[in-house]
Amino acid sequence: MDSKEFRQAGYRLIDWVADYLDHAERHRVLPQVQPGEIGARIPAAAPDKGQDMAGILDDFERDILPGVTHWNHPRFFAYFPANNSGPSILGELLSAGLGVNAMLWQTSPAATELEQKMMVWLAGLIGLPAGFHGVIQDTASTATLCALLCAREKATGYAFNARGPEAVDPDRPLRIYCSTEAHSSVIKGARIAGFGDRNIVTVAVDSDRTMDPADLQARIEADRKAGCIPCCIVATVGTTSTTAIDPLAKIGPIARREDLWLHVDAALAGSAAILPKKRWILDGIEHADSLVFNPHKWLFVNFDCSAFYVRDPGHLERVMAIDPAYLQTDRDDQVTNYRDWGIQLGRRFRALKLWFVMRSFGADRLRAMLAAHIALAAEFKGWVEADPDWELLAPVPLNTVCFRHHPAGFDGGDEELNRLNKALMDRVNAAGRIYLTHTVLDGRFTLRMSIGQTGTKRRHVEEAWRELRTTAAGDPGA
Amino acid sequence: MDSKEFRQAGYRLIDWVADYLDHAERHRVLPQVQPGEIGARIPAAAPDKGQDMAGILDDFERDILPGVTHWNHPRFFAYFPANNSGPSILGELLSAGLGVNAMLWQTSPAATELEQKMMVWLAGLIGLPAGFHGVIQDTASTATLCALLCAREKATGYAFNARGPEAVDPDRPLRIYCSTEAHSSVIKGARIAGFGDRNIVTVAVDSDRTMDPADLQARIEADRKAGCIPCCIVATVGTTSTTAIDPLAKIGPIARREDLWLHVDAALAGSAAILPKKRWILDGIEHADSLVFNPHKWLFVNFDCSAFYVRDPGHLERVMAIDPAYLQTDRDDQVTNYRDWGIQLGRRFRALKLWFVMRSFGADRLRAMLAAHIALAAEFKGWVEADPDWELLAPVPLNTVCFRHHPAGFDGGDEELNRLNKALMDRVNAAGRIYLTHTVLDGRFTLRMSIGQTGTKRRHVEEAWRELRTTAAGDPGA
Repeated sequence: MDSKEFRQAGYRLIDWVADYLDHAERHRVLPQVQPGEIGARIPAAAPDKGQDMAGILDDFERDILPGVTHWNHPRFFAYFPANNSGPSILGELLSAGLGVNAMLWQTSPAATELEQKMMVWLAGLIGLPAGFHGVIQDTASTATLCALLCAREKATGYAFNARGPEAVDPDRPLRIYCSTEAHSSVIKGARIAGFGDRNIVTVAVDSDRTMDPADLQARIEADRKAGCIPCCIVATVGTTSTTAIDPLAKIGPIARREDLWLHVDAALAGSAAILPKKRWILDGIEHADSLVFNPHKWLFVNFDCSAFYVRDPGHLERVMAIDPAYLQTDRDDQVTNYRDWGIQLGRRFRALKLWFVMRSFGADRLRAMLAAHIALAAEFKGWVEADPDWELLAPVPLNTVCFRHHPAGFDGGDEELNRLNKALMDRVNAAGRIYLTHTVLDGRFTLRMSIGQTGTKRRHVEEAWRELRTTAAGDPGA
Repeated sequence: MDSKEFRQAGYRLIDWVADYLDHAERHRVLPQVQPGEIGARIPAAAPDKGQDMAGILDDFERDILPGVTHWNHPRFFAYFPANNSGPSILGELLSAGLGVNAMLWQTSPAATELEQKMMVWLAGLIGLPAGFHGVIQDTASTATLCALLCAREKATGYAFNARGPEAVDPDRPLRIYCSTEAHSSVIKGARIAGFGDRNIVTVAVDSDRTMDPADLQARIEADRKAGCIPCCIVATVGTTSTTAIDPLAKIGPIARREDLWLHVDAALAGSAAILPKKRWILDGIEHADSLVFNPHKWLFVNFDCSAFYVRDPGHLERVMAIDPAYLQTDRDDQVTNYRDWGIQLGRRFRALKLWFVMRSFGADRLRAMLAAHIALAAEFKGWVEADPDWELLAPVPLNTVCFRHHPAGFDGGDEELNRLNKALMDRVNAAGRIYLTHTVLDGRFTLRMSIGQTGTKRRHVEEAWRELRTTAAGDPGA
């Protein structure tokens, strides 16, 4: 591909993406394809001869696009949002064009220093107290893994890194505490870091599904009596099922008193702390040792971009650093080498898209957009509560509503309601006008309506509510 | 930013990237900035009001670009290449525009199925035998970590995941074998996965810096006698210092006989197996349990894109899978959910850029470009060997030449030569016309010339050789 072909294909793609974002509603949210259907359209081997880009883009539209789930559709209400924006897409384009590896300061000083400054900007926006140092990671999964490794090495005086399992007395295992509502990445990280499932202590939740600090305290005490070594608390600000906010102001003092690492997983909800009215969700964050939240979820930065903050970067570096001759530079004691702040050695120049987004939107507009999402969720919650055929299943502190269809006068039990709501969700998703997913709360199949796409307006939420009610009413089985 | 502004800024960026790739030579390879200099140009906080994109792009050129290290400069010979290309950049742009999270089949069927097919294409290009199943990961660091976790769980019957350190008898530690030349990510992965540094057994290398199979066998036997549990061999195809090729055909049968997991780290060199003349580097790969190589290094795909292959995906999934209610779909037993094939839950749609690159270049052109890089390295090696003032320090099987300045008649020892070569490297890099880095071989400070940028031609390599000789000759201290 020469420069001329690059420009032609590039302009076409810029136009394509602009049209796509303007008119995402033209597409079904969830595609209508069977397993294997898209794969069957792709030949079995790479071509020997090069092909022209115009034809490849035609093939994309014909063969691939029909199998895409449209995460940036304004009627995508599934999971949590992974929202996106023009400035972010352009930042990713520029980052790809530069092709920089930001592993060391020397391998691109601007990448490291812009990243440092962007972490300061983000910390300012969410009102983080002084003393936290930030780095961009790919996902909250790896950030939480880093936090667990920091906790492991703090508890063992760096002996686990050096000696492995023998650093731990089998009768005195290291213990991790998180609530029943913690994200699966905590369990996965604990397995990877070698804690073992059985050393993940599940703390009870209150009726609002937030961690019960008294139960946390009791479990730590019981573990100490049993000879275990309490090591780490993972608190969740905005749980995946219901966006419950664990009370950091009560958990934090326990962590300090017991000398445990406190990691805060605020993957979705952290972004909401840019709103003065929602800043309370991080009350107590001054007690935390580490925090992660994902601008790639709810701050208009395309995936991946996860902000990880630690209070003691020296400890993080000591846990993570390997220092082979081929990576040493003269500046190593003057600069930050982010390769020692995470799992991977290689790192993209992700600060560019954060810079583009925060400057292009400006903090006021970011705040206005998140406030609008939260207001829409509150409104949807009101509709559910006001309708006798529907039931709210959890509090709505942020952008996600947990609910189910529960027809007035219906006298079956949860099992029947579960079948009914599963069938309703499948039917609604199959229709392709909206997309929403589920969770299970106390054995109840629960629909989740998570509002946070860049283009989502009031009418899209209204359409979702209409679609749900019409489908439920129109089908005696749903 | 509205659609019109997106298009204008997008066209400008497409043109900027096209010009940048055409004229990268206008820039110094390594920027001339002091620590903190770029950071000082960025305000301390995000703006409240949104700013227009044209001004932001102006600021990029004025404030950020002067601090960028130009990885895609044709005179970038440092580390290993992370080469790039037009089709790849466009693939990344489209992937960002779609903003898909490819964690589950349902969250974008086309992303999963194109990824599966691209892994088949790549396997075909490098001549991988049947029976390997591929997934795109971000880096070889995480892929190697996955392999170590697979080995750990195979050796313990999934007990480490379940029970942590107590799954391992302290007198019978799990042992990992790799050569003295293995990449730092192996050590880092072993620490993360909880093996402990002391259980990484360093196998001796032959004079060509390839793993000595007899020493491997002896160390496994000694460990078994001592009661240890041999668990995993990490062989390196293309070591970081010198691109030495560990002999898989000899290591593989040992792994099979001893029932150890064999992971092959071919991060750079794997791409070279697309050349029939270099396919021998993977001879014996049929014995491997897992393999990683990075199209983002030497196959014109912009970072990140690492190809990870396993023979038993069922085992990988069992090691990695967590199955919370909110991630379950009806299709889970019919489809591949790639979230269970790696560390992270969230995943970008990286298959697009691989598809664009392999189709736009075609296999013939990819082969021709890699062959040209290898031929240039051979030529450079010849110049070093023919010049009495220079010394070749390692064999050159691929694209990387290890050498030093050793003036004829110089009667100092290695220590003086080390100072001389360090000073030479610093001087050459400070001049900014070329960029190369070093390693240390048997205590000798070694210059590395790694040839693999997309735009690198014979004249760039000639310029590097001239620059090195002129600088060495012109300065009595270097």
